[in-house]
Amino acid sequence: MAAARATLPHPLLPTPSWRPQLKPFPSTSRRAVAAFAAPPLTASLRLGDVIEAQQFDRPALNEIFEVAREMEAVERASHGSRSRVLEGYLMATLFYEPSTRTRLSFEAAMRRLGGEVLTTENAREFSSAAKGETLEDTIRTVEGYSDIIVLRHFESGAARRAAATADIPVINAGDGPGQHPTQALLDVYTIEREIGRLDGIKLGLVGDLANGRTVRSLAYLIAKYENVKIYFVSPDVVKMKDDIKEHLTSQGVEWEESSDLLEVASKCDVIYQTRIQKERFGERIDQYEAARGKYIVDKKVLSVMPKHAVIMHPLPRLDEITVDVDSDPRAAYFRQAKNGLYIRMALLKLLLVGR
Amino acid sequence: MAAARATLPHPLLPTPSWRPQLKPFPSTSRRAVAAFAAPPLTASLRLGDVIEAQQFDRPALNEIFEVAREMEAVERASHGSRSRVLEGYLMATLFYEPSTRTRLSFEAAMRRLGGEVLTTENAREFSSAAKGETLEDTIRTVEGYSDIIVLRHFESGAARRAAATADIPVINAGDGPGQHPTQALLDVYTIEREIGRLDGIKLGLVGDLANGRTVRSLAYLIAKYENVKIYFVSPDVVKMKDDIKEHLTSQGVEWEESSDLLEVASKCDVIYQTRIQKERFGERIDQYEAARGKYIVDKKVLSVMPKHAVIMHPLPRLDEITVDVDSDPRAAYFRQAKNGLYIRMALLKLLLVGR
Amino acid sequence: MAAARATLPHPLLPTPSWRPQLKPFPSTSRRAVAAFAAPPLTASLRLGDVIEAQQFDRPALNEIFEVAREMEAVERASHGSRSRVLEGYLMATLFYEPSTRTRLSFEAAMRRLGGEVLTTENAREFSSAAKGETLEDTIRTVEGYSDIIVLRHFESGAARRAAATADIPVINAGDGPGQHPTQALLDVYTIEREIGRLDGIKLGLVGDLANGRTVRSLAYLIAKYENVKIYFVSPDVVKMKDDIKEHLTSQGVEWEESSDLLEVASKCDVIYQTRIQKERFGERIDQYEAARGKYIVDKKVLSVMPKHAVIMHPLPRLDEITVDVDSDPRAAYFRQAKNGLYIRMALLKLLLVGR
Repeated sequence: MAAARATLPHPLLPTPSWRPQLKPFPSTSRRAVAAFAAPPLTASLRLGDVIEAQQFDRPALNEIFEVAREMEAVERASHGSRSRVLEGYLMATLFYEPSTRTRLSFEAAMRRLGGEVLTTENAREFSSAAKGETLEDTIRTVEGYSDIIVLRHFESGAARRAAATADIPVINAGDGPGQHPTQALLDVYTIEREIGRLDGIKLGLVGDLANGRTVRSLAYLIAKYENVKIYFVSPDVVKMKDDIKEHLTSQGVEWEESSDLLEVASKCDVIYQTRIQKERFGERIDQYEAARGKYIVDKKVLSVMPKHAVIMHPLPRLDEITVDVDSDPRAAYFRQAKNGLYIRMALLKLLLVGR
Repeated sequence: MAAARATLPHPLLPTPSWRPQLKPFPSTSRRAVAAFAAPPLTASLRLGDVIEAQQFDRPALNEIFEVAREMEAVERASHGSRSRVLEGYLMATLFYEPSTRTRLSFEAAMRRLGGEVLTTENAREFSSAAKGETLEDTIRTVEGYSDIIVLRHFESGAARRAAATADIPVINAGDGPGQHPTQALLDVYTIEREIGRLDGIKLGLVGDLANGRTVRSLAYLIAKYENVKIYFVSPDVVKMKDDIKEHLTSQGVEWEESSDLLEVASKCDVIYQTRIQKERFGERIDQYEAARGKYIVDKKVLSVMPKHAVIMHPLPRLDEITVDVDSDPRAAYFRQAKNGLYIRMALLKLLLVGR
Repeated sequence: MAAARATLPHPLLPTPSWRPQLKPFPSTSRRAVAAFAAPPLTASLRLGDVIEAQQFDRPALNEIFEVAREMEAVERASHGSRSRVLEGYLMATLFYEPSTRTRLSFEAAMRRLGGEVLTTENAREFSSAAKGETLEDTIRTVEGYSDIIVLRHFESGAARRAAATADIPVINAGDGPGQHPTQALLDVYTIEREIGRLDGIKLGLVGDLANGRTVRSLAYLIAKYENVKIYFVSPDVVKMKDDIKEHLTSQGVEWEESSDLLEVASKCDVIYQTRIQKERFGERIDQYEAARGKYIVDKKVLSVMPKHAVIMHPLPRLDEITVDVDSDPRAAYFRQAKNGLYIRMALLKLLLVGR
């Protein structure tokens, strides 16, 4: 999410344009053969892929959220009579690193809409990749077997390369330290769903703000709304980086840093807690332990929070939210995980058949 | 299967009560939020889960077996026109240790009934679990994506914890040294299916009776029937333990130990052979080799068995049943494996839509 | 593919005979029990399995190719209304070594026809196999859960053993250094599809001709057609072996060896490039490097090829075809991979429901 990128959003086209872009299967006729040529990676992305949080503007977000809301009803109605929205469509989940939560969420989304799934839990050991095949060649093979590819990769930029290669839609399900746009979308959707609005929201981002791509993307997306105020509450070693702060300022978003979680909690609509990622600290175990215990969301934090406010967390959590918080109605993190299903249903529907 | 447990069966409720307990998806409304709270693990289990062999009484077993019998017809009719019994339902198989046989059996059962499946072959490497997420948090996430969870775990008691957490049904597909109730059910079903009755049955349990949870559960369940007689035939190092013997005695079940497999085989309706599990012997390889070769079911054993009797085995088998026995009509072990499909179809149907 | 085998083709029976052979599920009645007995491995294979390239004669190939052609339309029509050709049928993919490309291709084929799939990505760690269960016992269990088994195994002859055991059809998806018949079929199908005929074809086989089972099977199958001419272009260390050369000669097929790729390319209808397999060279890295760089298909090769000719490759490719060739209409390798889908759809249809 480099600063340069932020100035180059890839907005979604208006609705009717989703559909005609879909050319699910390259015909084998000679005329269509040029489609197999790899477009240069510098070419602007085909619309119709979901690659990064920055590609969505407000109207696009609104449309996705509206469809996500409709998906709640589709899911609820699925028992006894499967949805036929994506009947006959085939999604390939190509996961080069395991992420069971994300994978199951996409696969459930596809199945709730009546679609089918091809799964690869550990594509890194994909025999072909192990033998030295490029990602591009793998994508060109897999697109022959499916209608949409959900890609999880360990390398930043992999999803963009895949989308530049494929003639079918690609959804980025996380590419290393890069982007995880469906998480960003479900986070914003959850705020709107829980609080009822996005303009004027007061948001406290807590924990590892330096490494967590979720909080960075969330800060970026929420900046598209009016009168937003963001509080950063984090140990010194994992503070929010300057690029995001500068972007917020440039967008007219108020932000401040605080070391007083209780005070922040008393003023916010949303406390977004994150896990301190041990793997980022290497040998510095003492620093990790200090950072880890510093800002815990517990009953005391709950006691100062407004009645209408909610606690969010991208999961998995360790002990940065105590278990006794779970039973409070303001604990929204499992509802948030569930919203990931609706967001992914919405994206699959929009990319494959349009509204 | 502690003695204390045996006195605390969790009987199934009569049929109509299956259905209303199913609340497949926690609504996201605030009112429903308390459902996310983890009930204390000491709370009595919600009915509507399959956690341990002891929870079933005779009427419940009868009902399951009747439905299993109906499932044979459902399966046979599935070609060309898929069953719609579980159309639109989604089962998550969450396997923390691999058990391909059990997993395929559950997944086949779900699909034969028209349902869909989310698979995790190795949930132990579930990225979230690896990062320290509790089983409870994983269950709360996965229940948002599915309608029923089939859990295989390496830890005794895991299924009970999962069921105490989930708002959707949980089926225990084996939890470490603990329970494997669907195996126990298919064993009893196979006896009834092959011999035509359960009362008055004469049963020879052979092999590793100390460590095999299948023979322990089978002994426990068969004790619910009248005039049962059990023979234990095992090497000294892996004899049936006292808790089961005492339970049988308390239930009025006759049992005796024998070291003469031929004599036992000549008197029994069912010879239930088991594998001597090498992994239980550690360094004592010589003891393993001695135990392993001691009681083999071969043509000689077949020659003394009654015409109506059958040989069962939970599989996999090594050489404790010789391959030349397979062609005898009394070799029931592959039919027994197939019965696992019908039992699991029956349980899925009963838990999700009732009779 | 021993010489002896070549004289013992297992032709497919005429169409109506596919169907009645299918006994998807061994009944549990005593009368049917003999079906569980393992027939001796020397017995001639039941028709209705796909075990090796040699089993197909010209009429069988023609039939498969005709159905494959129909499958292109079935696939194209699948969006919005899933095919019901294999509705209610269940395919088990039992992969003892990973081969994601082949597995996804079979699973996509089954799903495009409306069928369902049970997957095992790594059956070698199948808990039962790890405990010492024989392949035969595993097959007998899995056939109880499914209607057709697709087997990938690391041991030559495994598919034949599986087919001799199973009462349901078995498709060999590669058994170690042995056979990979569906690859051979898709190769021949691609030639016909791209060039328009098989008789009179001029074929250049390039690269590792000693170890590659694909080129060996392709040479074998193409020998069934008239006026075929084959050129072998390979580094000395991986030359085509004598058994194939002798077979070609005995069938009246002209062949010659050449070290001039450009000259061969200027004369052929099809250049079939293959990867030099590093794993075959062990310590002899210098030999591998020399062999690897010797015959590269690049723009220069393209420039001498006839307009109607095509380049094929079984994939994955490393750098034996340069990336700038991909955009030429004569680069047929991704269309070839896609043809694998149609061939597998055709085989599944023929084996399960007939024409």
